[in-house]
Amino acid sequence: MHLPNQADTICALATAPGLGAIAVIRISGPNTFKIIETVFKTKKGKSKDFNSIASHTLHFGDIVLDDQTLDEVLISVFKNPHSYTGQDTIEISCHGSTYIQQQILQLLQQKGARLAEPGEFTLRAFLNGKLDLSQAEAVADLIASQHASAHQTAMQQLRGGYSHAIQELRTQLLNFASLIELELDFAEEDVEFANRDQLSILVNQLLKSVRTLRESYATGNALKNGIPVVIAGKPNVGKSTLLNALLNDDKAIVSDIAGTTRDVIEDQLIIDGYRFRFMDTAGLRSTVDVIEKLGVDRSYEYARKANIILYLCDPAQSSAKEIEEEIIDLQNKVGVDKFILTVVNKCDLHEESKLAEYSTLPKVIFIAAKTQLHLEELKKQLIIGSGVASLENENQLVTNARHEGALAKAEEALVRVINGMHSNLTSDLLALDLKDAIYHLGLITGEIYSDDLLGNIFSKFCIGK
Amino acid sequence: MHLPNQADTICALATAPGLGAIAVIRISGPNTFKIIETVFKTKKGKSKDFNSIASHTLHFGDIVLDDQTLDEVLISVFKNPHSYTGQDTIEISCHGSTYIQQQILQLLQQKGARLAEPGEFTLRAFLNGKLDLSQAEAVADLIASQHASAHQTAMQQLRGGYSHAIQELRTQLLNFASLIELELDFAEEDVEFANRDQLSILVNQLLKSVRTLRESYATGNALKNGIPVVIAGKPNVGKSTLLNALLNDDKAIVSDIAGTTRDVIEDQLIIDGYRFRFMDTAGLRSTVDVIEKLGVDRSYEYARKANIILYLCDPAQSSAKEIEEEIIDLQNKVGVDKFILTVVNKCDLHEESKLAEYSTLPKVIFIAAKTQLHLEELKKQLIIGSGVASLENENQLVTNARHEGALAKAEEALVRVINGMHSNLTSDLLALDLKDAIYHLGLITGEIYSDDLLGNIFSKFCIGK
Repeated sequence: MHLPNQADTICALATAPGLGAIAVIRISGPNTFKIIETVFKTKKGKSKDFNSIASHTLHFGDIVLDDQTLDEVLISVFKNPHSYTGQDTIEISCHGSTYIQQQILQLLQQKGARLAEPGEFTLRAFLNGKLDLSQAEAVADLIASQHASAHQTAMQQLRGGYSHAIQELRTQLLNFASLIELELDFAEEDVEFANRDQLSILVNQLLKSVRTLRESYATGNALKNGIPVVIAGKPNVGKSTLLNALLNDDKAIVSDIAGTTRDVIEDQLIIDGYRFRFMDTAGLRSTVDVIEKLGVDRSYEYARKANIILYLCDPAQSSAKEIEEEIIDLQNKVGVDKFILTVVNKCDLHEESKLAEYSTLPKVIFIAAKTQLHLEELKKQLIIGSGVASLENENQLVTNARHEGALAKAEEALVRVINGMHSNLTSDLLALDLKDAIYHLGLITGEIYSDDLLGNIFSKFCIGK
Repeated sequence: MHLPNQADTICALATAPGLGAIAVIRISGPNTFKIIETVFKTKKGKSKDFNSIASHTLHFGDIVLDDQTLDEVLISVFKNPHSYTGQDTIEISCHGSTYIQQQILQLLQQKGARLAEPGEFTLRAFLNGKLDLSQAEAVADLIASQHASAHQTAMQQLRGGYSHAIQELRTQLLNFASLIELELDFAEEDVEFANRDQLSILVNQLLKSVRTLRESYATGNALKNGIPVVIAGKPNVGKSTLLNALLNDDKAIVSDIAGTTRDVIEDQLIIDGYRFRFMDTAGLRSTVDVIEKLGVDRSYEYARKANIILYLCDPAQSSAKEIEEEIIDLQNKVGVDKFILTVVNKCDLHEESKLAEYSTLPKVIFIAAKTQLHLEELKKQLIIGSGVASLENENQLVTNARHEGALAKAEEALVRVINGMHSNLTSDLLALDLKDAIYHLGLITGEIYSDDLLGNIFSKFCIGK
């Protein structure tokens, strides 16, 4: 396999662009110290001898160009392999003027460094075994994280998350695969080096892990990208009022995204560090109007994809009995195991005795969106319904669509292996399916990769990381 | 004098706000290490003992909140007095997500740090004698510098510039002042402890230095804020075309600032790292129209303030003789020592023989603005005319309006001292003038300061510096 070039010494601004008190420029590669020696002088005007300098030390001095001091800087020295990339690395902490940043980067290029591609520092960290591929992806997620739960899941993935477990099971699978390969060499003798019972146990164990991980993706993805909540209900029960009340109350509108259809408006809200994506859908009702029916169908479609449905109703419009039937009808359309909260709105306009008859509805909660009554209770129920709080500290949480895809392929292959063993499939065909599973599991942690895959992953990084 | 509080431990984001690969958070003050000990854990989950850690070392580990890892970070340790502020200081290099930046800053505040005011780190550096006041001001200039010359002058000021020289002369003056004070105690005995001849030599020497510095301010200020160039000339000689040609050619329009009057349009251009501020003025001509005369008067006013005047003319409009007279007239109005370039425009439309008669004009250059002919030569002349290239490496360059103000006051006082000695002024009155000079010189380097002065200077800094 062709390995990306690591012989160049690369440099980039590592801190956010623009004006700051200080900025940090990172240089990494085999010629790092050679290049720095030509531009960095101590306050006594001397070059540093990097052979005698300890790693992880800080040095004050000047960046000098043609005997003129460009800036007074502090440099951090990291000697290979004890650096982020695994190569010799220097970080220059300079004054945060954009002019100085540009001048220093230009100077480093004159001296033989080149500007780093997006994610190239992290790519090198991966190539040098400082991070596996899943951890490298977590770095980008971590930098992009804007709320507690996205941050937390990225952090877990960075710390190893499920990739260590996958790596271990994959290694065992690899052993079996090689034993089966061996059987092929002795095909005429009809031997079994690979104990089929043990293989069966391992494959089943692996399949269970893979399925658990795949199931966690709905939550993992929700934690990263926001938990989808559909606000459903008949027309005029106060769906939009509720959405506005939730958003205004917290003054935490993250964005106003026009939905993919005119009928679904999406808004985001952070509650207790979790991001919820609220979708305000078209009113649900049976209709003969073809166009309106399409809108209602779409509402059901969103409801099916959502983690939580807030079924909003108005006691002035529907009796408790009617609402019960509506919810059963909704469950038939979106699945009985969907988490549906029955939200009785406008409760401030009714007598307690009237409301009492609604209290037997499933997972019911009484609110008044307009006067912001009991919204805190509703939010508490959203956290509970999302199930995120209990899962958040789980290491086994897949948040990455690429990983989910690889897990799905691995699952298919593992199922074929199990079926194959049941039907006494020949070793050579079994070996093919095993290798397929091993391949896809390897893609997650990066034991298997292609230039394309790496290009795809690291091009999404910011420059300087 | 009341000293600003240094007992607090302060923290701030030191890098530019926004998303980057990494961000740096700075903490400084007496409790820095105590605070960091509560939030920083090594990869083995242990606290660091900062007593046994050497200054200027880097440590990898986690920022931990309630047993959850907030981020993997690298911390730089600076022990007092070997830090920017002179106090114990830590820099946390964290992942560059804005969420992480905020969380870490919040955590540090929970543990007893407070957010730093703008410039508070540099204020402490000044109070602890790491920088004098003039150097502290240079830090802000350095960060704000957007082009080579502003950067270079700020750098020189940061490295001590003229402030060391002033400090030394001021100390000598201080000695004389105390001797004269002593004379007052023995007034009845009519003794002279302070040798008047030596004092006279010192004061004259100081006065010469102060005057040289004051003279450098025009250049220094020009280097920092741009060299003012007025494009003057009769109507329709191509003034605006020249301005546009210069700007388009370099595609380096920094800004389009509408002048303080409708008649003067200002544009900026960087040539060889120097910023020039071009002012396109109303056509100069004698007029009886009252309103137009006001515009023309204003043009002369700008020309007087400019470092360079480009006197543009068109051979089709004026003979060489006429232009010579116009320039003499201009010199009478703006000063004979003003640098005036005679710029003969539209030279591509005339025969060489015709142009020859213009070649005897003072400091003449032939261009064609419309076809961008000889603009490079014009730029070369601008650099020469500005005189900046030779002065740039000069340490004795005042760029700061506050310093110029203080120098002016010091000069006045020194002149009074000299006059006083000539007229045998009594020691007590002489002492007053000397103290006045000492006071104003002290304001430059910060040996004298008030809370107001410091507040004024440091409030202009960015937070985190």
